[in-house]
Amino acid sequence: MLKLPALDPATLEEKRGSLYPEPFKSRMGDRGKRRLAQACGLKNLGVNLVTLGPGGQSSVRHWHTLEDEFVYVLEGEVVLVTNEGEQTLKAGMCAGYPAGSRNAHHFINRSQKPAKYLEMGTNVPGDMAFYPDDDLSIQETEDGIAYAHKDGRRY
Amino acid sequence: MLKLPALDPATLEEKRGSLYPEPFKSRMGDRGKRRLAQACGLKNLGVNLVTLGPGGQSSVRHWHTLEDEFVYVLEGEVVLVTNEGEQTLKAGMCAGYPAGSRNAHHFINRSQKPAKYLEMGTNVPGDMAFYPDDDLSIQETEDGIAYAHKDGRRY
Repeated sequence: MLKLPALDPATLEEKRGSLYPEPFKSRMGDRGKRRLAQACGLKNLGVNLVTLGPGGQSSVRHWHTLEDEFVYVLEGEVVLVTNEGEQTLKAGMCAGYPAGSRNAHHFINRSQKPAKYLEMGTNVPGDMAFYPDDDLSIQETEDGIAYAHKDGRRY
Repeated sequence: MLKLPALDPATLEEKRGSLYPEPFKSRMGDRGKRRLAQACGLKNLGVNLVTLGPGGQSSVRHWHTLEDEFVYVLEGEVVLVTNEGEQTLKAGMCAGYPAGSRNAHHFINRSQKPAKYLEMGTNVPGDMAFYPDDDLSIQETEDGIAYAHKDGRRY
């Protein structure tokens, strides 16, 4: 049995579902996350171990203003969708999204098997995300961040 | 052939050696790194794919003042050494080191096979590192960071 700062991810609960409003939440499909870095007490770096079932999506296709993001595929294969089109990533391949780069991205599992990957990113106050394909935006509010339509109406 | 933001790590040169002064540099042994996040243009998040041969070390045992660090073992096994002692981490296990936690850490490969892991961390201006086992420190200077003895004499 490992003790912190070491951790066996299998000892963490896999969280399902997402914070997106519908119809985006359902679109994510069969997706489970283990929040590894949070479990180790990290505040500035997020690292999640994600299992993405057939048909699942990593997120709504998006880009961040201030957060650097990086993904590393551990098992199976996923399709990376960006502004330029699609690429298939197999185990051992990766992708990196610099903060402020307007190249929106997400993974889709178009295979018949679950895929596993690590997703990591910096936690930066004031970070925003934009979603070019969908009527979705993030608004800063008095009570924190809220999802909204592109015209500002809250979900 | 993948195109950015996707990357096949096998297409990157594996960098060997370290910036430590001797005798610390040689102590690292058989260690090669591929700087994945840097190759994708990330500035605030570092992600390296590291191959550590038998007898190799990830670093001099240290802790950081401002950098969050996280490691995920991909192949083989490594021994994590912290203030509390040793634990063996196999493939699929991980460890996280919150900024400012004075629990110094490093990996040693005590096995007979190469180990592979991902090491990641936040790039934070003004970050310092301390090395409780060794006569080593990092000094801020007019010309940037320099390695020094604990009494301040430069290496």
